[in-house]
Amino acid sequence: MIGRLNHVAIAVPDLDAGIRKYRDMLGADVSAPQDLPEHGVTVVFVQLENTKIELLHPLGEGSPIAGFLEKNPSGGIHHMCFEVEDIRAAAKKLSDEGARVLGDGEPKIGAHGLPVLFLHPKDFDGTLIELEEVAV
Amino acid sequence: MIGRLNHVAIAVPDLDAGIRKYRDMLGADVSAPQDLPEHGVTVVFVQLENTKIELLHPLGEGSPIAGFLEKNPSGGIHHMCFEVEDIRAAAKKLSDEGARVLGDGEPKIGAHGLPVLFLHPKDFDGTLIELEEVAV
Repeated sequence: MIGRLNHVAIAVPDLDAGIRKYRDMLGADVSAPQDLPEHGVTVVFVQLENTKIELLHPLGEGSPIAGFLEKNPSGGIHHMCFEVEDIRAAAKKLSDEGARVLGDGEPKIGAHGLPVLFLHPKDFDGTLIELEEVAV
Repeated sequence: MIGRLNHVAIAVPDLDAGIRKYRDMLGADVSAPQDLPEHGVTVVFVQLENTKIELLHPLGEGSPIAGFLEKNPSGGIHHMCFEVEDIRAAAKKLSDEGARVLGDGEPKIGAHGLPVLFLHPKDFDGTLIELEEVAV
């Protein structure tokens, strides 16, 4: 069911410092920061050869990663995202097998403009998993 | 400097349950477990189209992931691994720029039989980064 690893998302307390580490120290190709106010984050894409890392920093009030950074002030890996072809079929299969889809269970439009949903980390070894529907 | 994301490693408290989640619920291609006694882990490879996930479970006394699972009993993402062409050059560049290489700073032979080293998570936004030298 799951296809490519679309990205690994890292919550960072200092976006400029995060950019410098990935661009200057690790020598990766790093995008300019993009504000996504409807998602409460500023995001930077670290483009690798086979996937990408996303550095997330809170934007505005009620950012979905503010609580994570309160608990993890140094930052940390927030989630990883797998691509699926049919997100509603994936959600139904997972729910039928006992996994919890976060929220109301309905896909939302994510930061890339595609349907996404998140799975409960307690059901996947403490790992927050995002599924994203991509055109194939 | 960094090339492909070689893998994301997840420490799991119950390896059989982890296998079932990735194979049966997420529909991924999952290897048989491999004991790596010299590394203190049993590992399962979840092969995705563009990279892999490694499920790690402690093996024997003094496993390097036992402490992580004590702090995170549900499991969690333990590290991510980037490929590099020249690990000694990478270690020197990172040290020169103030990042801490764990241990004595010398590469060791990792779980794939290739030279690896780990970077201090406090220097990379709370993320444990492994570098692995691969032939290119």
